[in-house]
Amino acid sequence: MKDPRRPDGSEMQKPRVAVVGATGYAGFELARLLLRHPQINKPTFYLRDGSAQVRCLTELFPQLRGWGEAPCRAYSVEAVASSGATVAFLATPHEASLDLAPPLLDAGLRVVDLSGAFRFREPDTFVAWYKLRPPARKLLEQATYGLPELYSAALPQARLVANPGCYATSVVLGLRPVIDAGWADRSRGIVCDCKSGASGAGKEPKRELHFVEVDENFRAYGLFSHRHTPEITDHLGLESAEIMFSTHLLPVARGILSTLYVWLDRPREAAEVESLYREFYAGRPMVRVWPAGRLPELQHVAHTNFCDIGFALDASGERLVVVSCLDNLGKGAAGQAVQNLNGMMGFEEAAALLC
Amino acid sequence: MKDPRRPDGSEMQKPRVAVVGATGYAGFELARLLLRHPQINKPTFYLRDGSAQVRCLTELFPQLRGWGEAPCRAYSVEAVASSGATVAFLATPHEASLDLAPPLLDAGLRVVDLSGAFRFREPDTFVAWYKLRPPARKLLEQATYGLPELYSAALPQARLVANPGCYATSVVLGLRPVIDAGWADRSRGIVCDCKSGASGAGKEPKRELHFVEVDENFRAYGLFSHRHTPEITDHLGLESAEIMFSTHLLPVARGILSTLYVWLDRPREAAEVESLYREFYAGRPMVRVWPAGRLPELQHVAHTNFCDIGFALDASGERLVVVSCLDNLGKGAAGQAVQNLNGMMGFEEAAALLC
Amino acid sequence: MKDPRRPDGSEMQKPRVAVVGATGYAGFELARLLLRHPQINKPTFYLRDGSAQVRCLTELFPQLRGWGEAPCRAYSVEAVASSGATVAFLATPHEASLDLAPPLLDAGLRVVDLSGAFRFREPDTFVAWYKLRPPARKLLEQATYGLPELYSAALPQARLVANPGCYATSVVLGLRPVIDAGWADRSRGIVCDCKSGASGAGKEPKRELHFVEVDENFRAYGLFSHRHTPEITDHLGLESAEIMFSTHLLPVARGILSTLYVWLDRPREAAEVESLYREFYAGRPMVRVWPAGRLPELQHVAHTNFCDIGFALDASGERLVVVSCLDNLGKGAAGQAVQNLNGMMGFEEAAALLC
Amino acid sequence: MKDPRRPDGSEMQKPRVAVVGATGYAGFELARLLLRHPQINKPTFYLRDGSAQVRCLTELFPQLRGWGEAPCRAYSVEAVASSGATVAFLATPHEASLDLAPPLLDAGLRVVDLSGAFRFREPDTFVAWYKLRPPARKLLEQATYGLPELYSAALPQARLVANPGCYATSVVLGLRPVIDAGWADRSRGIVCDCKSGASGAGKEPKRELHFVEVDENFRAYGLFSHRHTPEITDHLGLESAEIMFSTHLLPVARGILSTLYVWLDRPREAAEVESLYREFYAGRPMVRVWPAGRLPELQHVAHTNFCDIGFALDASGERLVVVSCLDNLGKGAAGQAVQNLNGMMGFEEAAALLC
Repeated sequence: MKDPRRPDGSEMQKPRVAVVGATGYAGFELARLLLRHPQINKPTFYLRDGSAQVRCLTELFPQLRGWGEAPCRAYSVEAVASSGATVAFLATPHEASLDLAPPLLDAGLRVVDLSGAFRFREPDTFVAWYKLRPPARKLLEQATYGLPELYSAALPQARLVANPGCYATSVVLGLRPVIDAGWADRSRGIVCDCKSGASGAGKEPKRELHFVEVDENFRAYGLFSHRHTPEITDHLGLESAEIMFSTHLLPVARGILSTLYVWLDRPREAAEVESLYREFYAGRPMVRVWPAGRLPELQHVAHTNFCDIGFALDASGERLVVVSCLDNLGKGAAGQAVQNLNGMMGFEEAAALLC
Repeated sequence: MKDPRRPDGSEMQKPRVAVVGATGYAGFELARLLLRHPQINKPTFYLRDGSAQVRCLTELFPQLRGWGEAPCRAYSVEAVASSGATVAFLATPHEASLDLAPPLLDAGLRVVDLSGAFRFREPDTFVAWYKLRPPARKLLEQATYGLPELYSAALPQARLVANPGCYATSVVLGLRPVIDAGWADRSRGIVCDCKSGASGAGKEPKRELHFVEVDENFRAYGLFSHRHTPEITDHLGLESAEIMFSTHLLPVARGILSTLYVWLDRPREAAEVESLYREFYAGRPMVRVWPAGRLPELQHVAHTNFCDIGFALDASGERLVVVSCLDNLGKGAAGQAVQNLNGMMGFEEAAALLC
Repeated sequence: MKDPRRPDGSEMQKPRVAVVGATGYAGFELARLLLRHPQINKPTFYLRDGSAQVRCLTELFPQLRGWGEAPCRAYSVEAVASSGATVAFLATPHEASLDLAPPLLDAGLRVVDLSGAFRFREPDTFVAWYKLRPPARKLLEQATYGLPELYSAALPQARLVANPGCYATSVVLGLRPVIDAGWADRSRGIVCDCKSGASGAGKEPKRELHFVEVDENFRAYGLFSHRHTPEITDHLGLESAEIMFSTHLLPVARGILSTLYVWLDRPREAAEVESLYREFYAGRPMVRVWPAGRLPELQHVAHTNFCDIGFALDASGERLVVVSCLDNLGKGAAGQAVQNLNGMMGFEEAAALLC
Repeated sequence: MKDPRRPDGSEMQKPRVAVVGATGYAGFELARLLLRHPQINKPTFYLRDGSAQVRCLTELFPQLRGWGEAPCRAYSVEAVASSGATVAFLATPHEASLDLAPPLLDAGLRVVDLSGAFRFREPDTFVAWYKLRPPARKLLEQATYGLPELYSAALPQARLVANPGCYATSVVLGLRPVIDAGWADRSRGIVCDCKSGASGAGKEPKRELHFVEVDENFRAYGLFSHRHTPEITDHLGLESAEIMFSTHLLPVARGILSTLYVWLDRPREAAEVESLYREFYAGRPMVRVWPAGRLPELQHVAHTNFCDIGFALDASGERLVVVSCLDNLGKGAAGQAVQNLNGMMGFEEAAALLC
């Protein structure tokens, strides 16, 4: 980790960031990460609707006492713009991000949006899957899809970063090497069977998220209708009809594990597959490729920003199962947002992400 | 289990029961138990507010398909009274039970109420702890506190049975033998440290019952304010100042385990303690006393109607820890309601409760 | 449930059964089910190696006190043969079943074996997947694969029933209708992504089954090497190369949920798929087909003998996901063994399985 | 966090530490903390019995890849002594620590022992509770009980630090203020009802730690025989007969919550109690006192080195319940060991403990 106190020293020279809407699970994780980021000033948190009486972060999250403190303010574009912040994180619902991002960009801030609002090239894709009004095409054209392992080159200039969906991150990172290499027999289709912990469903109390409904339970949901589907097809270059993508709810708080099934075009050796993945992710500190024969587990990545990828190949060398896992609040949300910040600011890619 | 088909045979001669409000966790458990009770007719379920379109139980609980089916009706006193039912179960909130019980009793039905509405001798006790309007004193006078191990003699004539609270059942059954025997040094006070699974908190979605808030967590709640407190002091014959009673939320779906601390008046042998408990509960099929040196566990009683009681005595024989556990939806709610029905109707005490 | 006491009455006329090796999780479940079976005499339990001092079942399982009691004996063929039992359940490891079944069959008993020893037509299949010595070909030829929904016609005459593997039950029941109908485009392959609770891994303490290793974790295991693979291909009539079958460990005690991916040969309507499944399982009380648009969950089948099957079809009607779930100790082991007993003895298929 | 790179810069000038036996859960946590400690050199890990082929830490813990790497060596006193290390951590069983500590001390190293071997003043106490041979009285006399909130003054000179037991840390920190103040009516006795996650029981596979035995379960254990008892009485200055201390196993991986019951000598105000605790722990960064009316939860401290303390006082002001919670692997073991290191070396108390 870089030294937070430079020889010439003043904290004032470090960039300032603003966080809007840090009340959910991803927001809390983002707060925790930014508080300890050695290369930025202490962030300011902006709350919408009626939380104006909250003055500091530990009123919202008493369990943060002792880790540091940060001011909370009522949200307004003006408040953020006049704060000296150069980057704003939006940890807000999709519809809120649609509203909040344009004026912040107009005010000269760079924006990292954790919602789905700006993840697609086509406004219609968003409308079709989210049933909300379309984002401006102009914004989509300038937005960077914030998956640094694929698109980090765009980050230094990016003004609007659309932080990817948690499932999409897991599936795209898990499959991109084998698809880019042309090894998949796409005519047979690819199956992505994904399982997530309950924090991925948000903090709002709902009947189906009651402890008793999740504990000792397991269920599929959102089959053929999950909103992360178009991110996956877009960034893998697949047609919908070539893929089956399913999501399931695990009785754990955090973590996604995706089991990805690929029929190969011709027999391969396990060593080839391992090399393919190792080379693809060479130099990327947040992806860990597991050696052939060992598979990553949810526990290995919980509370981290890693995406761990392992695989199994059958004896014939033609059937490949890739296992990709990550923490949905880490690499699947807040951690990735910080990784994007690091790319935008020219920090080390893993800054604040290895504590 | 008694034969459901008598030599003279007709199902029509078996008693009919009505269940009002079976939409919560205890209601579901009650439905499951009553559906398989061999000595009653298939129950009818009555729903309040707007569920009138539900015609049968498996529309509410699809997971009951295959177990049997039962009709659902919109609730009215007249509908229940004209149905031929002789016993009505109220699996309703406290305030609803306050309203529903009197007209059902007036219509000649016997009532088993699972709420707290009729558990106290004094209307003021209810008002003080539940912050609701007082039940009629006349009803409280005629109500039987439905803890069959203590009060089964009153059940055959009972018209209104107040089904006990889950924590209270666990604590009262765990302590009554040693207190009745006069072995406790009450001047030193008694501590009741109780832990419950999340189904005890009801089915309504709440922030603090979200899976992520309960999973991998454990917390105390309701200290010095839990509503089961007056049941415990009433039925143990203790003053408030003689007891400390706490409740905690376990990350499990069902079950209560109470750890009960008693300083004895003089040294005792473990064998004496075991005998005391065995004799107290002799002939009671739903309490299982564990031998000295072995303690019951939550798993042993989950999905059953048993209350399991074990203990540890220190080497000096003066410090006693009693462990009492049960399923909060079984012996702590629906199972105990059926046990009360059995007592009211003259069935075997454990009928329908050992499957 | 049938009346346990017939008009002519004597308990002595009910069949006797023996259970060998009921010390694991499936064995405990089997004990629980057989104790309450109304049409058999109380079973006798036979223990191997050194448990001869155990005289009754509640010494092994104190949590069974109150449910009934049953004698335990040291195992020998002679002891079982002279006991009057006509059916013996083997809840023993594969290698033990290989040894135990032949002399019991020779002594005239009928055998239900819960291990993998007799599940294949070819001795070599067993050797290849279990790395143990081959079972006698003659035994395999006479063995019935105990999946009653497919093979119940063979049960009344069966002398040796090979109770299926838990994963295999789930996958075969979930896929058989669509494969038998010829609707699957087998050239694209079928993917079976299966998840199981930890009781499926047995009771023996192992590092990877320590609570801390399973809790808040999720992992794939046994990829391309799971022993249930040949059961699945045998009973679906598929080649290995047409299927990818994976298994995962869920942080729950019991239950299997299999997500099954089938590319259809031509577009279908959801109503067609539902009809196909409903007709296939018409009259089978232990399979519950869910209506289109609703999916079964693990909780619905835990502690039951049901296999619940639901599905989702994409808008094009060409991509089908079938979800099949069951309790690995119920329909996946002990419950299915009792269902097989019911078929062998001419009892109702669901006897003792709906309590 | 202090800057790991000083102006004059060389890493060589930072202290070196050795860790012996880091294969259990506390050892893993210790490795994770020491790897990121900015003021020490990368630690060397020493393995006993047969792990000599392991050359680096990620062979043992692949999930540490990406966090940093550290060498592993076969253990010998000579190897440690010649390594330049000045402090050795023993994350070893009690009996191993008995053997290992003396030669390391003789070789001039300072030792932090995580076992129970050196926690008592009297060798006989250890023998009585651990059933092992006595530690040398001379060592016990020079040992510091490593609870920094009470005994930090001794750390700078300490050569042997006995890291406290996890339960003892929780209970002693929770009760010490009220007992030191003389507010407890000790004649009535104090009850300490403690609950721990399963990692506290160690990593060795055991029947009772199998996932299926802990999941959805809860049980008391070790009543009147838990080894942490004498630490509690020693450091609270209580007689055994004045206290009842119980331990329970929670179905969570990590965390201890202790509910502590004290009858006060005379009525107190909540504000008085809060002040008492706040003043007692003023300036101690790792204890967080919660305001009256709010109670800490296990989740608040999991994966941290905090001990959180809250309380509830009844309306009469005479009955006090203190809730004290911590992470058994953090403040209850490895984190506290690092806190002790910080005290020994003159680092900030919270160095490496707030990431």
